[in-house]
Amino acid sequence: MTSIENFTSQYGLVGKIDAFGYLDYLKNTPDAPRKHGKVVLVTADTPLKASRGEGKTTTTIALIDALNARGIDAAAVLRQPSMGITAAGSKGGASGGGKASLTHPELIDWGLCGEMAAIAAAQNLLVSFAEKAVDEGKLDTILVPRVSEVPSRSLRQIAVDRGKGDVPERVVLTPTCELMQIVVLSRSMDEIAERVARMIAGTKGGKGVTFGEFVDLWRITSILTDAVKPAKTETVNGSPVYVHGGPFANVSIGIPTLVSVEMACALHDVVIVEAGYGTDAGAQKWLDIACREYGAQWPSAAIVVTRASTWRDDPDLAWRYPFHVNRLENLDIPTFPLINLWEGEDDQVPTLLETAEKLEFRKPVIGNLFRDGGAALADQLDQFIDALKNGSMPAAPHSHRGMSVIENVKWVAEQAYGVPAERVVLKDGFAASRDEAVALCDSVGVNMADLALVAVKSPATMTDDDRAPQDERTVTLKKVEIHAGAGLVHVNLTTSLTTPMPKIV
Amino acid sequence: MTSIENFTSQYGLVGKIDAFGYLDYLKNTPDAPRKHGKVVLVTADTPLKASRGEGKTTTTIALIDALNARGIDAAAVLRQPSMGITAAGSKGGASGGGKASLTHPELIDWGLCGEMAAIAAAQNLLVSFAEKAVDEGKLDTILVPRVSEVPSRSLRQIAVDRGKGDVPERVVLTPTCELMQIVVLSRSMDEIAERVARMIAGTKGGKGVTFGEFVDLWRITSILTDAVKPAKTETVNGSPVYVHGGPFANVSIGIPTLVSVEMACALHDVVIVEAGYGTDAGAQKWLDIACREYGAQWPSAAIVVTRASTWRDDPDLAWRYPFHVNRLENLDIPTFPLINLWEGEDDQVPTLLETAEKLEFRKPVIGNLFRDGGAALADQLDQFIDALKNGSMPAAPHSHRGMSVIENVKWVAEQAYGVPAERVVLKDGFAASRDEAVALCDSVGVNMADLALVAVKSPATMTDDDRAPQDERTVTLKKVEIHAGAGLVHVNLTTSLTTPMPKIV
Repeated sequence: MTSIENFTSQYGLVGKIDAFGYLDYLKNTPDAPRKHGKVVLVTADTPLKASRGEGKTTTTIALIDALNARGIDAAAVLRQPSMGITAAGSKGGASGGGKASLTHPELIDWGLCGEMAAIAAAQNLLVSFAEKAVDEGKLDTILVPRVSEVPSRSLRQIAVDRGKGDVPERVVLTPTCELMQIVVLSRSMDEIAERVARMIAGTKGGKGVTFGEFVDLWRITSILTDAVKPAKTETVNGSPVYVHGGPFANVSIGIPTLVSVEMACALHDVVIVEAGYGTDAGAQKWLDIACREYGAQWPSAAIVVTRASTWRDDPDLAWRYPFHVNRLENLDIPTFPLINLWEGEDDQVPTLLETAEKLEFRKPVIGNLFRDGGAALADQLDQFIDALKNGSMPAAPHSHRGMSVIENVKWVAEQAYGVPAERVVLKDGFAASRDEAVALCDSVGVNMADLALVAVKSPATMTDDDRAPQDERTVTLKKVEIHAGAGLVHVNLTTSLTTPMPKIV
Repeated sequence: MTSIENFTSQYGLVGKIDAFGYLDYLKNTPDAPRKHGKVVLVTADTPLKASRGEGKTTTTIALIDALNARGIDAAAVLRQPSMGITAAGSKGGASGGGKASLTHPELIDWGLCGEMAAIAAAQNLLVSFAEKAVDEGKLDTILVPRVSEVPSRSLRQIAVDRGKGDVPERVVLTPTCELMQIVVLSRSMDEIAERVARMIAGTKGGKGVTFGEFVDLWRITSILTDAVKPAKTETVNGSPVYVHGGPFANVSIGIPTLVSVEMACALHDVVIVEAGYGTDAGAQKWLDIACREYGAQWPSAAIVVTRASTWRDDPDLAWRYPFHVNRLENLDIPTFPLINLWEGEDDQVPTLLETAEKLEFRKPVIGNLFRDGGAALADQLDQFIDALKNGSMPAAPHSHRGMSVIENVKWVAEQAYGVPAERVVLKDGFAASRDEAVALCDSVGVNMADLALVAVKSPATMTDDDRAPQDERTVTLKKVEIHAGAGLVHVNLTTSLTTPMPKIV
């Protein structure tokens, strides 16, 4: 009998799965055995800074270990961390820790099977082909950036062909590029090729020119052959973990690939999807992009992770955690607060429970997951499991297709950041940037209102000043960027720095 | 019993071998079963242009198939082609063709298991750390280039930190970088770390500063964990093929990794090492760098491939092929001409044999290897096999350690290009470049005369003008570059363009 094993190959210590092939097989074989797993989001409080994790991956790992210990077939789907950022030492890896660990975290942290590198090569090859198109008179300007997996602040702005053309360019981190988004959102290699063909390479005579007009698409898809296959690994307790897609839900979509989640749902009863940084980044992207516009499954429950110190120590920012929990509950997603204790914080449990009760939260799940792993959680999951077992399969959410980009941002600002429409501010130059983007879309036959919105912002802030009183908080719109192949429109928000190419610190 | 299988993991359709571990095991286990295979170089006539292959890989594959068909345990060791160059369409892959093919040439051509990408990430991370060292006042200038696996002519000269520092930089193709050379020449991860520590990052107050002074070496070696493992695949006829190391013996060393060849020699009786482009590039590098300075095995035989048209159609350049064959014979390497016929050339065999006889060659091996594979060769290999069986194991060649760089170039020009010392010309500025390099070496405690010479030149020429009459040919020395970590000194020769970063054509 055909099974997932037929679609799995070993790559050293991980399996690589032909998810496109497996999902095709399920589609063409209605009687094939399959599960209909429910999606749970593990997201978090907005972090105090980008490099300070609340413990989402640790929680995700502890959670599937705890669920499996209770006899529930649960798996996790993680994005791959940025190897460059990890290698540079700017951030720890993203593969859990302590008793809530993967068997081989080093594989996940250090480049896995070269998926990110292949996407980088393919995106850079597109830029090289665009450059050739400039030489041949098919393009005047290039709009796609080169990428680097390795951070380097001096690559933010570069000039190529120094001493001759001195052409300004920018380099962005690989996970944030349009080709990564295409890999995350596509359900077949044909769809990837179609989307690459629709990517806007640059302009000629002021009109957009797409890659489909001059690139052999098979060259790009050939590079991606292995990169489109999710990796399978496991926790130290044997719970299955799939890893696929890139990070950075603040400056890109930063969610696991849709096919990795769909494949996991066909194989397991509960599928934990990690969606970070905070609820305002990863969860917002999962709900409003993946579910709303790309047919991903609406979560049947959510867990919002915080550290006691994040919640407690900065009164100015303490509004953010309950805001996130309530926002998800208001979407009819049963939402469980989870407080990930650090060493020496066990005595704070009573205070934390008290605060949660005051806030009318569901009873929070609390534990030191690094120290105790899934065992810290298993006994606390009754309500969570009940919500999963007895909740109905969620309906598909409404699409925002056709909504203008400004209306769309206002909606997100209100729903996800708590800032009403009248305090969404257009920065000088925003309208011009928007008009230019509309014209660019028009020139390639795309209606900008049909593109899904990617809010680009700092991972550590939701508004222009999260410390301002509630009724003074604003969101400023800075500029618009089109990713027509991925079907996305990026809008840079707030006054904070984003990290398309960080400095090594 | 321990065997090579204990050191091999499956990575999709190829095996990856922990060659460091296996060679360590052999060293520590003198009684372990092992072979003492002989090395055969497959090299070629100087190509008419870089993108025009004579058929070295096709020959290598046909040859091991023919030897195995005759009951001889033969394997091949290939370098990995540049995925970027292949993907860009500037050159076909380098994995044979027709009946002389690998089972999965697409794997070799399209990035294998990400080895090259990992080396690129590690080299680029070194540059990022150097940049951080500049920010911290530890460095004034950076001397190591960033790399790209994808060709792009506009990356030859770039400026980073545009609008602020506007720092000039250059980007080179990944296979040509010092870290690739270190991977090719090292026999353990410790040796790689030591060599990275000795790489000159840049200068401070005019003196060299090495990476060992400010980089955590484990970050670099962690990235390289899988990249240091040779891949194992096979021909369509089941003959074993190992693939490891990068191309471009004209601008770098361009030979397979030393450990891949040593491992293959422990496993097989005959090991065919592909060494291209021409004899003046790949074979010169194998003999004069790998064997002379790094303890690689001197070849027991050589095959010099040409196409009938290369040999025949350009009388001005026809001197090159017999020059190569005779040069190797004069080194006491039994050298067999091999003419790789293309469709419609079968009737030229009598003329080719006649020419070879006039030139006092050994009887050439002639066949259409694409069409007929190893079957075209099997019957013609008696002399070749005899040379391998009855030749003595070659002695170690003399090192050039201590020879000045100019003496070394003069020696290579005479031996490998046929240009006597008096016609080796120093271009204006060369002496200054050399003096600067000597001072840089001195400042980090390296004697430049202890570095092995890498002649950097066009793949398609040996001298300033290969069409000039023999007694007018010159070799011009242009500049010197130090790769202290790899233990190499590069000297750019001739007036021809090299390809550190080609244009897509």
